[in-house]
Amino acid sequence: MGKPASETKACDFVLFGTKGDLARRKLLPSLYQLDKADLLHPDTRVIGVAKDKFTREEFVERVTQSLKTFVKEPLNDEIVKRFLARCHYVGANFTDVEEYAAFHEVLDPATRVTVNYFATPPAIFGDICRCLHEQGLITPETRVVLEKPIGSDLASSKVINDQVSAYFKEKQVYRIDHYLGKETVQNLLTLRFANSLFASKWDNRTVDHVQITVAEEVGIEGRWGYFDKAGQMRDMIQNHLLQVLTLVAMDPPVNLNADSVRDEKVKVLKSLRPINMDNVFENTVRGQYSAGFLKGSPVPGYLEEEDANVTSNTETFVALRVDIDNWRWAGVPFYLRSGKRMPVKSSEIVIYFKNPPHNLYRESYRNLPPNKLTIRLQPHEGVEIQMMNKVPGLEQKQRLQTTKLDLSFSDTFKTERIADAYERLLLEAMSGNQALFVRRDEVEQAWTWVDGIIQAWEQSGERPKSYPAGTWGPVASVALITKDGRSWDE
Amino acid sequence: MGKPASETKACDFVLFGTKGDLARRKLLPSLYQLDKADLLHPDTRVIGVAKDKFTREEFVERVTQSLKTFVKEPLNDEIVKRFLARCHYVGANFTDVEEYAAFHEVLDPATRVTVNYFATPPAIFGDICRCLHEQGLITPETRVVLEKPIGSDLASSKVINDQVSAYFKEKQVYRIDHYLGKETVQNLLTLRFANSLFASKWDNRTVDHVQITVAEEVGIEGRWGYFDKAGQMRDMIQNHLLQVLTLVAMDPPVNLNADSVRDEKVKVLKSLRPINMDNVFENTVRGQYSAGFLKGSPVPGYLEEEDANVTSNTETFVALRVDIDNWRWAGVPFYLRSGKRMPVKSSEIVIYFKNPPHNLYRESYRNLPPNKLTIRLQPHEGVEIQMMNKVPGLEQKQRLQTTKLDLSFSDTFKTERIADAYERLLLEAMSGNQALFVRRDEVEQAWTWVDGIIQAWEQSGERPKSYPAGTWGPVASVALITKDGRSWDE
Repeated sequence: MGKPASETKACDFVLFGTKGDLARRKLLPSLYQLDKADLLHPDTRVIGVAKDKFTREEFVERVTQSLKTFVKEPLNDEIVKRFLARCHYVGANFTDVEEYAAFHEVLDPATRVTVNYFATPPAIFGDICRCLHEQGLITPETRVVLEKPIGSDLASSKVINDQVSAYFKEKQVYRIDHYLGKETVQNLLTLRFANSLFASKWDNRTVDHVQITVAEEVGIEGRWGYFDKAGQMRDMIQNHLLQVLTLVAMDPPVNLNADSVRDEKVKVLKSLRPINMDNVFENTVRGQYSAGFLKGSPVPGYLEEEDANVTSNTETFVALRVDIDNWRWAGVPFYLRSGKRMPVKSSEIVIYFKNPPHNLYRESYRNLPPNKLTIRLQPHEGVEIQMMNKVPGLEQKQRLQTTKLDLSFSDTFKTERIADAYERLLLEAMSGNQALFVRRDEVEQAWTWVDGIIQAWEQSGERPKSYPAGTWGPVASVALITKDGRSWDE
Repeated sequence: MGKPASETKACDFVLFGTKGDLARRKLLPSLYQLDKADLLHPDTRVIGVAKDKFTREEFVERVTQSLKTFVKEPLNDEIVKRFLARCHYVGANFTDVEEYAAFHEVLDPATRVTVNYFATPPAIFGDICRCLHEQGLITPETRVVLEKPIGSDLASSKVINDQVSAYFKEKQVYRIDHYLGKETVQNLLTLRFANSLFASKWDNRTVDHVQITVAEEVGIEGRWGYFDKAGQMRDMIQNHLLQVLTLVAMDPPVNLNADSVRDEKVKVLKSLRPINMDNVFENTVRGQYSAGFLKGSPVPGYLEEEDANVTSNTETFVALRVDIDNWRWAGVPFYLRSGKRMPVKSSEIVIYFKNPPHNLYRESYRNLPPNKLTIRLQPHEGVEIQMMNKVPGLEQKQRLQTTKLDLSFSDTFKTERIADAYERLLLEAMSGNQALFVRRDEVEQAWTWVDGIIQAWEQSGERPKSYPAGTWGPVASVALITKDGRSWDE
C-alpha cells in the first residue's frame, strides 16, 4: 500500500520470458524506475528466466541494452549499477521440470517472497506452475502475475485459470490489465467518491450517457500470429474497455480493499445486458481497415499488410452500445469503441450529463450543449469539465460558449513524473496488494458477455465493415449512436 | 439587447455632474469605449451638464483630458474625434428651472430618446426631475439613471424614489449598481441555469454554505463627507453584496426578462431572516481599522486619517451570517464580509458543496476537503472548481490533493477585452433594457433588512471592534464563522 521501500519485504522477482518484447520494453525499464525511486527493498532481486543458457554476465549485458533502448530519460549510472547488481539469471526450458532444479541455486522460497511474472504465452502457464510445484518452489508466500490475454474465450480462460489454481490460491494470483495501472484510471475512484459534485450525480437521474474510446494509430504491426486470431474485441474490449467501464459504473465499495472493489466491479459485469443474435445488429459494429491515409501518408489495408491472411474476417474496430441493467444505470447507454488505424491515438472516458430540466437560453440555443466530464487517459492524462459560460463582451449579451475547466496532470503536478502503468502494477504485486489486478470471476464474467457477441457475429456470417485507414471506423459506427440522438465525442 | 449600433435608436445621453469624479473616471471613458466598439448609434449625442458656463470648446477640452487620463489603452485619434463631435454642453444650476431653458437649444425630447444620468448627490434628484418636467423635457421615451446610494435608509430612499417617481414611471428609472455590470456577475445566471452540473445542485441538499467577500485595500480615501456618515454596511453590503447574494440565491426566473429576474431577486430579499437586538451579536461583526501595515508599509488607522472625525463610530468592516428562510436555502448560511484596508483587493463568491455522504478515504483524510465553486469578480475574473484528485506517483497510493479546474476569463476569451461594468450598464440604459438595474422594491427591501441591523447596532451602543490595517478584520469575524465549524476561504 505504497509504503517506503524500507518497510516492504524483500522479494525475488522471477521474470519468465525475459527475452520477450514485454520484458525488454516495459518490465525491465519499470523495475529500473522503481529502483531509482527507492521503491525496491535493498535486498530485492530480479531473476530473468529464458531457455538460453546465458551466463549472469550475458544476462546483465542484455538488461543493460534494454534499459539503454527503452528508458526514456537519461540513465543514472549509479542506479543502473545498483539495479544490475540485483539481476540474476536462470536458463531453463519452461516445460521441463528437471531444468527448474537450477532455481534452487538462486531462490529460497521458504524464507523469501517470490513473485513469478509469466510474460509468456498463456498456453504454458500451467506447465510453469506444475514445474514450480514439483520442484517445491511454491509456498503460501509465492505469487504469480499473469499477463493477458488469459484465454480467447470463457472455455479457454477456464482451462488456464484451472491450471494455475491447481497450484495457487486466488489470493496468490495477480492478473494484469495494464490499464488499471494508469494514473487516470486509478484517479477514477477518487473523482467519483471524493468529490460530492460527482458522487451525487452519477446515475440515471443525472447522466445522459457515457462514452469510452480507445483509438490506436497503429495497425496490425506484424502481430499476425496473435492478433488475427484475437481481433479487437478480444484484444481491447474484453479487458481494457470493460475494466474501465466497471470502474465508471460500479456502486460505491464498502471500502477500498481489493475484494471490496472487485466485488462491485463484478456486479457491473453481471449486469451487462447480453448481446446475441436478437440484438447484435442494433448494438454492435465490426470494422476492418482498408488502405487509406494516416497523417498524410498512405498506409495499407489490413488484408494488404505484410504476411496478411488475405481472407481474414478479423475485426480491427468495434463499436458497441452497452446497457447496464441495474438500478443505477437503467436507461443510460455506455457507448464503447476501439479501433486500429484511427486518425489519432487517443483514450478517453466522457460522461455526458443530462441537460437542465428547462432551457432559459432557448433564444440563443435550441439545445444547450450538455455539461460533460472528460477523463483523458492519453495523450496528456487529465480531467476536463465542459461548462457553459457567458461570452464576455458588450454586443453579446446572451451569447454563451462552451468552455473547458482543465486539469492536466503533467501541468498540475509539475514535480511528478507520470509513472508507467507497469511500474505501479509491479510495485503492487511485490507489495502483495491485489486491488489493481483482475479477479478470476471478473475475467470469466467478461468472457461470458464477450463470447455472446462473438458467437452472434459468427452466426450472422457477416464480414466486418470496411473503413479507410485514418478514419474513425465504418459509417455504421456513427449510425449506431446517432440513431439514439447522440454523437461521438470530438 | 446587444444589437449592433445601427439597429439601436439614436439617443441623447445627458450627463448631470459631468465635472465629477464618476463622470471623469468612469462614464466618459465608458462612452468612448462604446463608441470605439461601434455600439453607439452614429447620431447618438453626449450632453454634459454642470453649473459652469463652459463653451462647447471648453467642455470638449475637458472631455479630452478625462479620456487621456482615464482610458487605459492608447487612444485612437479617429475615435476620439468622432466621440468629441458627439459632445455638447449645457451650463445650468441643477435646481434652477429657468436655467433648464438652455436644454431646448440642444435637446428635442419629442423626437429623440433622452437618457438622463444623475451623477449627482441624491438630494437633488428630485429637483432635477422637477425642473426637467417644468421645462417640458420629459416624455414617455425619457429615462433617468440614478447613481447609488439612493438614500441612507428606507425612509430617505423612499423620499428620493417618491420624488423621482412623481415624474418618471418605474419602467423609465434605471438604478445603477455597477456590480451588476461585471462580467462575472452577469455570468452567474449562465453558470447556474445553463449547466446541469450546477442547476440541479444548488440548494440545501447539496450546498453546505456560501461565502461572499468584497475586500478593499484602500482606506477612507479622504471621503469623509460621504463615507463617515454611511459606513461599510450602507456603502457595500446594502447594495453590492446583497445584489450578488440575490443572484446566487434566487429561484429560476420564468425567463430572462428584466422583471422576471427582478421578481425572483426581490423574493430572496424578502426571505432574509431579520437581524435585530435578539440575534445581532451572533450574526454580525462590525470593525474599524487601526494603524497597521499594508504590503510592508505603515498605514494610519481610520481615526488617524487626515481630517478624521476622531470620535467616529463608523464601521469600515462588516461580517454577517445571513440566513435565507425559504425552501431552497433553509439551513444553508450565507457568510458575507466586506472591509477596507484588507491585505488584498479581492472579490469572490464561493459555493461550498456538502461532502459525499460517506468518506471512503478516511485513512488519509478524516475530513475530505469539500468541492467548492469559486467565482472571482476581481482580480482576474474567472471561475474555478476545487476537486479532489489522486496525486500521481508511486509512493502515494491513496494520497489525494485538492486541485483546481480553472477558467480564467482573460485566458479563455483571449481576443476579448473585458469591458468595464459601466460600459455594459450605459449601453443597456441607452438600449432600454432594465434587467441589470435595481427595481424600487429591491432597494426598499434591502434597506428594510439593513436598517434592522444598523438599528440593533445603535441600540447596543457598542463601538466597532478594532482591527489592524492590512488584516482580515477583527478576530470576532473569524469567530463568527468558526463557531459554525467553518472557516473563511483563503
